[in-house]
Amino acid sequence: MAVNSPIPVAADLKPVAGIELGHAEAGVRKANRKDLLVMKLAPTATVAGVFTTNRFCAAPVQVSKAHLEAAEISGEPIRALVINTGNANAGTGEAGLAAANATCEALANLLGCHAAQILPFSTGVILEQLPVDRVTAGLPQALRNLNEDNWFNAAEAIMTTDTQPKAASRSLTIEGRSVNMSGISKGAGMIKPNMATMLGFLAIDAKVSQSALEQMVKQAADRSFNCITIDGDTSTNDSFMLIATGAGELEVTSVESPEYAALAAAVTEFSQQLAQMIIRDGEGATKFITVTVEEGKDVAECRKIAYSIAHSPLVKTAFFASDPNLGRILCAIGYAGIDDLDVSTLDLYLDDVLVAKSGGRNPEYQEADGQRVMKQSEITVRVKLARGTADATIWTCDLSHDYVSINADYRS
Amino acid sequence: MAVNSPIPVAADLKPVAGIELGHAEAGVRKANRKDLLVMKLAPTATVAGVFTTNRFCAAPVQVSKAHLEAAEISGEPIRALVINTGNANAGTGEAGLAAANATCEALANLLGCHAAQILPFSTGVILEQLPVDRVTAGLPQALRNLNEDNWFNAAEAIMTTDTQPKAASRSLTIEGRSVNMSGISKGAGMIKPNMATMLGFLAIDAKVSQSALEQMVKQAADRSFNCITIDGDTSTNDSFMLIATGAGELEVTSVESPEYAALAAAVTEFSQQLAQMIIRDGEGATKFITVTVEEGKDVAECRKIAYSIAHSPLVKTAFFASDPNLGRILCAIGYAGIDDLDVSTLDLYLDDVLVAKSGGRNPEYQEADGQRVMKQSEITVRVKLARGTADATIWTCDLSHDYVSINADYRS
Repeated sequence: MAVNSPIPVAADLKPVAGIELGHAEAGVRKANRKDLLVMKLAPTATVAGVFTTNRFCAAPVQVSKAHLEAAEISGEPIRALVINTGNANAGTGEAGLAAANATCEALANLLGCHAAQILPFSTGVILEQLPVDRVTAGLPQALRNLNEDNWFNAAEAIMTTDTQPKAASRSLTIEGRSVNMSGISKGAGMIKPNMATMLGFLAIDAKVSQSALEQMVKQAADRSFNCITIDGDTSTNDSFMLIATGAGELEVTSVESPEYAALAAAVTEFSQQLAQMIIRDGEGATKFITVTVEEGKDVAECRKIAYSIAHSPLVKTAFFASDPNLGRILCAIGYAGIDDLDVSTLDLYLDDVLVAKSGGRNPEYQEADGQRVMKQSEITVRVKLARGTADATIWTCDLSHDYVSINADYRS
Repeated sequence: MAVNSPIPVAADLKPVAGIELGHAEAGVRKANRKDLLVMKLAPTATVAGVFTTNRFCAAPVQVSKAHLEAAEISGEPIRALVINTGNANAGTGEAGLAAANATCEALANLLGCHAAQILPFSTGVILEQLPVDRVTAGLPQALRNLNEDNWFNAAEAIMTTDTQPKAASRSLTIEGRSVNMSGISKGAGMIKPNMATMLGFLAIDAKVSQSALEQMVKQAADRSFNCITIDGDTSTNDSFMLIATGAGELEVTSVESPEYAALAAAVTEFSQQLAQMIIRDGEGATKFITVTVEEGKDVAECRKIAYSIAHSPLVKTAFFASDPNLGRILCAIGYAGIDDLDVSTLDLYLDDVLVAKSGGRNPEYQEADGQRVMKQSEITVRVKLARGTADATIWTCDLSHDYVSINADYRS
């Protein structure tokens, strides 16, 4: 059960004009589960994305990046995205690239476009060849299901060890014109995105120029999917895609326009919601932790310290146990690798409780106060460095027995 | 039960002339357990050490570093080390420094020397003030116990969550002169030393000049305690001390001498044994894993990749489960942060089994072969980068349910 994150209600998920979703049970790894998704786009759509920085980036990531570049040169728009679970098609060498390309070709034939107009995505086990025949055999079923009102099934179709689907919709008005957005994400483990999360797809019905969309997706990712971590493992398949179908009222032609600023802010906030859903449903998560580092010299050092806290197995197990063993947080700050950090000016808060003051235990601090906060399901750790004006926030979860169980048993 | 690491037999631990050890039950945190150790040194002894790089380094670490520097200037030798468990005296500010100094003064009064000739060490809970009165009240008991033949009790007296004492002895002959060495270490959690482990003490009866000893301890630490990791948490209290009592036959006056080379090699190998004992008894450890990265451009990138593998919770849980989910290792290599890493030339071995070849799954690789190795209690992961001649080795353990249990319950 995800932390304070109810399962989305299908009726709350709204269509975004210009995008249809179709799912299938292709049996990629297991029978009788939704494991294939096609997202078909209107020809007016623009697409931009950010991808994993893992050097072992998966074959579909390599192909998607190449197809996005090709689309920009040829002017032939991306017409569909195809996502399979059950197999990541990573660490699969030339055969893996051939499998990702074959998937694109099969879908292009069915849709009547070129293979380069398809973006493929995979998630699941690494180092095993993709059973591409099962994927292509499932495509007709997915196309028969194509429907604008199919976001809930789409969210289910991209789940792996997620305990629940992750999806949301929003409508807003910008400069008098309505904008509708829906998005889905998946996560659960191997989550410390460095460019984007495992998989996130966000569609808006505005018409957005390619260059503006590219800036918007980076801006949103840097403040959402790139601020979460479950276990520090940056996946081989992380991808976050922003789709602007162009079928709605709003048009954004330049990053200097007021429409851009308003839409980018809304997309960023919506992306944070989708990203936080991943943490709330992190493998074995029982708590949602916000780590904020303030008054640093620059954002980089604030992030370094925040990640050091968020990745410490000792800090994470203390959260799981609701044990205010808060010296572990100071320890993680100390080894974050900031060589000139003067800890004698540093304050540490747990929600509103001042735990450490000027680098040492706050004389007023009472264990009962720390205990009270540690028992909550949502906790904010706040570090004040007193050496600058920069800050950063990272969202994470605790480390529980279930994380070990889930990952010890993942393939069985 | 530690992995392939039997409990040392007291009779196998040999005295090192020039060092006496005395323990006490001081009740620092809990009653009726050995939690205080005094190591009294002959006036001929030289002492050198390496300490944690954690910016929140503990009060006793700060005092020990200052006393080592003072001894070098004054020429007054270090006469004793005093170690307490149950409280790390870290994150304790000015009061913590005063407590560490008070411990030194109390012991100096009892031994008839200056406080600056005492080195204090603490291990245990962070962010709580050291009950210094209990420590000083326990000193007379420890001094009554002083004995050259007390290494087993000494090893027990520095344990925290360790499941068994860690100690060993060796005798060898260098240039026709006998050398005797005994050492103890402790670890268990918060272990990713960056200069040294939680606590390690190694005594030899050779006479070694201060400058040669300082080089020797760095050389040994870099190839032993600085090559182990349990959970990536670099403690606030890590200290590794090398003591040369000067009471034996061998004398080392310069780092250029053949005696230095032979003794440094023996000390390094012995340090590796003590360091590996910590991993074999890592919190919840069921497997001992050696990660070797070869053919790198430099040692730094080899270590970076080795640590990335050794710290990945997904890799560690796969080892725990004996599950050859080896794509997780490729994933960890990929996100190690080597920007120009070309994975297409990379090979991955699990013991003798070639799992990945030229960056993809080895076509000859059979799951059964990976399964066979994963079931072993000792496993070597070998990565060949094919881009240089450097290599590095890191020792680590798996991540089990017991790690979570131990650290969720540590203070209770």
